Amino acid sequence: MKFDRIIFNGIVITVNPDFDIIEDGVVGIKDGVIRFVNPRKKDISQYSADDFVDANGGIVMPGLINSHMHLPMSLFRGLADDLPLAQWLNDYIFPAEQQHISSDTVRIGTLLSCAEMIMNGTTTCCDGYFYEDDVAAAVIETGLRAVLAQGVIDFPAPGVPDPEKNVDTAVAFVKKWKNRSLLLTPSIFCHSIYTCSGERLKQAKKAADSLGVLFQIHVAETKGETDQIVEAHSMSPVQYLDSLGIINENTLISHAVWVDDDDIEVLADRNARIVHCPESNMKLASGVAPIQNMIERGICVGLGTDGCASNNNLDLFAEMDSAAKLHKVFKKDPTVMDAKTVIKMATIEGAKAIGLLDSIGSLEPGKQADIIIIDINKPHLTPMYHPESHLVYAVCGSDVSDVFVAGKALMRNYAPVSLDVNDIMRQAVSVSLEIKQNHK
Amino acid sequence: MKFDRIIFNGIVITVNPDFDIIEDGVVGIKDGVIRFVNPRKKDISQYSADDFVDANGGIVMPGLINSHMHLPMSLFRGLADDLPLAQWLNDYIFPAEQQHISSDTVRIGTLLSCAEMIMNGTTTCCDGYFYEDDVAAAVIETGLRAVLAQGVIDFPAPGVPDPEKNVDTAVAFVKKWKNRSLLLTPSIFCHSIYTCSGERLKQAKKAADSLGVLFQIHVAETKGETDQIVEAHSMSPVQYLDSLGIINENTLISHAVWVDDDDIEVLADRNARIVHCPESNMKLASGVAPIQNMIERGICVGLGTDGCASNNNLDLFAEMDSAAKLHKVFKKDPTVMDAKTVIKMATIEGAKAIGLLDSIGSLEPGKQADIIIIDINKPHLTPMYHPESHLVYAVCGSDVSDVFVAGKALMRNYAPVSLDVNDIMRQAVSVSLEIKQNHK
Repeated sequence: MKFDRIIFNGIVITVNPDFDIIEDGVVGIKDGVIRFVNPRKKDISQYSADDFVDANGGIVMPGLINSHMHLPMSLFRGLADDLPLAQWLNDYIFPAEQQHISSDTVRIGTLLSCAEMIMNGTTTCCDGYFYEDDVAAAVIETGLRAVLAQGVIDFPAPGVPDPEKNVDTAVAFVKKWKNRSLLLTPSIFCHSIYTCSGERLKQAKKAADSLGVLFQIHVAETKGETDQIVEAHSMSPVQYLDSLGIINENTLISHAVWVDDDDIEVLADRNARIVHCPESNMKLASGVAPIQNMIERGICVGLGTDGCASNNNLDLFAEMDSAAKLHKVFKKDPTVMDAKTVIKMATIEGAKAIGLLDSIGSLEPGKQADIIIIDINKPHLTPMYHPESHLVYAVCGSDVSDVFVAGKALMRNYAPVSLDVNDIMRQAVSVSLEIKQNHK
Repeated sequence: MKFDRIIFNGIVITVNPDFDIIEDGVVGIKDGVIRFVNPRKKDISQYSADDFVDANGGIVMPGLINSHMHLPMSLFRGLADDLPLAQWLNDYIFPAEQQHISSDTVRIGTLLSCAEMIMNGTTTCCDGYFYEDDVAAAVIETGLRAVLAQGVIDFPAPGVPDPEKNVDTAVAFVKKWKNRSLLLTPSIFCHSIYTCSGERLKQAKKAADSLGVLFQIHVAETKGETDQIVEAHSMSPVQYLDSLGIINENTLISHAVWVDDDDIEVLADRNARIVHCPESNMKLASGVAPIQNMIERGICVGLGTDGCASNNNLDLFAEMDSAAKLHKVFKKDPTVMDAKTVIKMATIEGAKAIGLLDSIGSLEPGKQADIIIIDINKPHLTPMYHPESHLVYAVCGSDVSDVFVAGKALMRNYAPVSLDVNDIMRQAVSVSLEIKQNHK
């Protein structure tokens, strides 16, 4: 067979069911799909391919999956920090969104986030925001893979002034983008229990189910929100959602910080998918989600950065490091959340969480060729005893040298292939100058 | 005046007592010393200097200070992770030290750590280890600034087979290196209360005082160690040290995780210096040091990465991010450990902690020109509303483009100036292959 691309001379972290690590591996790609992942058995010159990629002894692994974030919010990166949650939201983020989020700025923020993700080895993201048609158009320009959802909230929102039309808008988004691009999977995102009525949640979930798409929602992120729901419904957020019939394997629950053992049983029984966002939860002092307990109970948990306004970057390598260390100190046990577990959260478990398990999350024949190469020829990655340890505890996003999505090169030797990154940054700075005028 | 070097076109974070941030600043350097730090008032061409450094709109700030680490341990980076502390130490780290730490390997590990630090913007480190003469010689080769201490431990140690000679060896090290280089300050490092007798601790502290050097010690890092000391002495580790007369402003206490309010009073009364190592404490599940309480009580707290075997890098930008986020979630308050507080820990408070407040830690006239430049022209640092926020929550070590120590360039435009980094990595890999033979 003639391949489109052969990647060789790398340590291949397959993230297959056995977590095989191939010391000197070769990956063959054709038509955007991985055809084989093998130890090198013969001279590379004996393969026939249009392009040979020398990984130069680096790590070859599945592109990372950011299972929860808000693409356009990179425009608010570091706008406000170190503030009480209510003040941060009400005095900075909500007003900034109201005044500055438009079809134009959403496009710019999305391109900026995509540039950052390409350069840090993230090949798929799962987003929920507004003006999602513009988000989708921008993502398609960049070549990244994404699950994208139009947000549903029972208040006037950017682009959706009449809340009565929020589910219709979300449904129209799904219909417009379904089956339109192999890289783009539409979804519906209800903001939360405290911003959507029970009827709205049921209506949106029913629409998602009938369209066959993922339903996303923030759940139990803060104690305040959780207390409020318990008071209103005499049930925990998870139990309340379950009473509405909303939790199943197509429901992606972000945060799940304030959940107890009973809630975990419900999540496990319903086969819900969870996204853990440790850095956002830490920075906003939301709390520590009992992720170790969920994983022990067999619940699928992906990893997310959340929006850039609360992190303040989209670096999943840093997020893996934080996830591992946070739970060790929180559980007082250095053996929990070991490197392999955390890598799986950012790859195969993320793929499962966002409904793309069949196509991404591991380097296995038949899967999409979403592949990154990490350059380990640096002092902070020397020496290397265990590549999986480096990925969690030493690598950072800037060590990624090459990125491929569906076999197409998005970055080669540290240089983004088609995006004009300087122009994107220039546009983002221009938006930020307007935002600065209003938030001194 | 003709300057050796003028740095211009940067946002200058002075870390002076008012934490002044100069939007378009100019820094003048002569004879290794900062002569002025001003807003740009005139054309740069009107200055006379041998070298003009265009910061290109980036951030110009004091070089970071790593107040607790073990230079040669970069050789064990990622050798073992995710293990119970005793197993990690007894099965991996101690045997690896016994078998592989020599005059030669200490030199290689030190050069490797220094290369990493130069490339991530750390200009000063405070180290304690063995074969410290070799550490010192290697550090001097690199041009970094350092406080270096020969370790004292009541067991046969690398290079000191007879524990009876451990204090003499440490004293000889101090005498050899005192006043020998402007960049090198010798010190004495007792490993801990549980590895040194009370008599040894007193003897070493007395020697440090009479030589006028910093006394370093690990204190109350783990609960197990703390319980053991309470059982043996009916006092907390801090109270025990205080009963020996060992805590004063020339005593640098690393970790201080298991300290209570009474201990904090003692530390404050005695004007002790503390080093916080959040990532090591998290990864080893040692616990969360009550740093916020110490800072509120006016105690000086620096920041350290600890050795590479428990972190697994020497990136103080990542360490600042972890410090800020850990204490927010631990104290359930997003306002604690704000960006400026954390930056001070990694700069001016670190300088004070290690006894170099008069010469480093801020960009002020008369201080040594230890200066770094951070390249902000990247998607993950765009836009920028508050430079201090970026330093803690978005920058990583690889964003540092230029590094100067005592006015001398150690890195220019991402390229280390004089170190042969590839050769250092090659030597470190060679040592690691021997270590791998013994630790499969």
